[in-house]
Amino acid sequence: MKKINLVKGMSEVLPAELKQYEYLSDMINDISKTYGYRRIKTPLLHKKEAVNDFGDNNFCFKDEEQEEICLRPSGSIPLIQTIVYNKLYLDPHLPLKFSYLDNIYKYYPSHIEGERETLEYGFECFGEDSSYLNAELILMATRILYFIGLDKVSVRMKNISKRSLSSLKGTLLKYKVDIEDDNSITNSDNLFSDFIFEIDVTYKNKKHLVAKGGGHTNIVKSLGNKNHQSVGFSFNIDKMVDLMNKLNLFPDMSDQFDFYVFSEDNSGLFSANFVSLLLRDVGLRVDVCYTGISEVEAIKKARRKNIPYAIIVGESFEENEEVEIINVFKDNKSNIRLEDLINGITHESEEKH
Amino acid sequence: MKKINLVKGMSEVLPAELKQYEYLSDMINDISKTYGYRRIKTPLLHKKEAVNDFGDNNFCFKDEEQEEICLRPSGSIPLIQTIVYNKLYLDPHLPLKFSYLDNIYKYYPSHIEGERETLEYGFECFGEDSSYLNAELILMATRILYFIGLDKVSVRMKNISKRSLSSLKGTLLKYKVDIEDDNSITNSDNLFSDFIFEIDVTYKNKKHLVAKGGGHTNIVKSLGNKNHQSVGFSFNIDKMVDLMNKLNLFPDMSDQFDFYVFSEDNSGLFSANFVSLLLRDVGLRVDVCYTGISEVEAIKKARRKNIPYAIIVGESFEENEEVEIINVFKDNKSNIRLEDLINGITHESEEKH
Repeated sequence: MKKINLVKGMSEVLPAELKQYEYLSDMINDISKTYGYRRIKTPLLHKKEAVNDFGDNNFCFKDEEQEEICLRPSGSIPLIQTIVYNKLYLDPHLPLKFSYLDNIYKYYPSHIEGERETLEYGFECFGEDSSYLNAELILMATRILYFIGLDKVSVRMKNISKRSLSSLKGTLLKYKVDIEDDNSITNSDNLFSDFIFEIDVTYKNKKHLVAKGGGHTNIVKSLGNKNHQSVGFSFNIDKMVDLMNKLNLFPDMSDQFDFYVFSEDNSGLFSANFVSLLLRDVGLRVDVCYTGISEVEAIKKARRKNIPYAIIVGESFEENEEVEIINVFKDNKSNIRLEDLINGITHESEEKH
Repeated sequence: MKKINLVKGMSEVLPAELKQYEYLSDMINDISKTYGYRRIKTPLLHKKEAVNDFGDNNFCFKDEEQEEICLRPSGSIPLIQTIVYNKLYLDPHLPLKFSYLDNIYKYYPSHIEGERETLEYGFECFGEDSSYLNAELILMATRILYFIGLDKVSVRMKNISKRSLSSLKGTLLKYKVDIEDDNSITNSDNLFSDFIFEIDVTYKNKKHLVAKGGGHTNIVKSLGNKNHQSVGFSFNIDKMVDLMNKLNLFPDMSDQFDFYVFSEDNSGLFSANFVSLLLRDVGLRVDVCYTGISEVEAIKKARRKNIPYAIIVGESFEENEEVEIINVFKDNKSNIRLEDLINGITHESEEKH
């Protein structure tokens, strides 16, 4: 078999794992909406000159016209660019609160370790300077972690400006968020001015970095805007999913079928597929056998796939629209008119809502 | 202001538009789940040799180590590669049904027209050869379009193999899907073997191409697997969103705040922010004023932002945890204990579910 290696650091995400990513990002989205954050999609490709002041190891290349281009090296830079270029700050209602869920890219040659692709859920709050606002941003991060179940959280901070952080720290302390000073925090990508903070989750007595943020006034200034400030942070979603798996924080998300539909001979296949379609139209998850199959075989298959009910579509469907429904684990069966089955299901799901 | 042009064909998606994309992809996801499709995320970067047999105008470049790399030129190729490389076809339950929602990239120099980035929602059904299965795939596409409201749908098809399509067409005709032969359909990216189909939506007497699919046995074979066949199609999400806007098919998705919380002087700001936090913790969308503001100003602001209720947090909050709640459009107010407000809201939302 012709096996072509994948590009280093790029891999597919299979369904079970992708659902965990979606579960986590949906939760973050729901909570951050209550704070007024609205999601933006930032562009993938950027001119090198637009991002080169920020970040080492940017993933850059020349396109066929020799233009120097970078894969998105961070979410905050394109987000702030979007705000400044489109003059969104002229909105009478500042601050602007935006979020993004995007992959960011770094280039590490094949012999050097480092994540080339990282999924970030980031937040940016633009246009107002207030210690309450800054406190709210950090507080939101800790509330999100708490609601997810990653509740052993600690926050470290470093001041990189001349302004005192005592008012911010005092506000957070009132919310019982104790900030530890940490001068070892790096600003290697030059993404921050003002202050930087990092949030750890403790698991098995070890601290795991899950979020990093701070003031981005330098990015705003680099775009020629001297009047506004911007603060933000981003979650490292990959790390959070990893910790949530270790702590068993994901609910059961298996996607079982509701029915296994079959006919015992090929002449009934159209009807079996037709019944499947009608059941899917009312929202049921239906697996269908595309060839004729005996009842014994069908029950075996349904059991192996963990599908609770099988439906035989046979001659009585042609005659009076009846199907036979089998409880595959209890092995009992009964006849029912398709219309009654569908009405029963529709009625049941209406009661649930 | 330092304005750096964006890379051609790359742009940000602002919140109102992004929500439309999410609404549409959620609907497609919900419906395709009932057919057994499960979503995969395909890698962004591919070795040029892995994709070069398929597609003109692939977006290729050399990385810093002179390795030839391409941005994802299609969703179906990496998806089929994932299945073949990971030997997912050893699963006893064929066919495998996977979907993807990914951007695909093409390279057009700056003076040539063409979409560099397109969002595709694609489906791939791997490992079983049946005209019922092929019919189901096309039927699912038309059902999805019907449920979305794009219901003036027609399907065209071209045979590019020696096998007859009469059984597939006959099955579809039983479902009242009439297939028109169209030998003008192109296979420019060499993505299809067997057959190709295209689906149009008619709007204002003009047909708009929204989906393209067919047999991918050639891709499977190119990977050295001679025993399986794969069929698939993809929706062009950008075009569908465009048509849905023209036909007014999106519901109102404005994200209004529920409450505007403020205090009349700076000494009450901590309490105002604290109240906001508690309301957000029960799922309410809360906007808060980060500086002291008069009642008149606050009501004006809330009205402009279309927020129905304002909450004053003042001295009576310190004394007995009472806040004042203002109906900003009717201009009446009343006192309520915060606990009672939160309990009332929690109770109300429980009743809804």
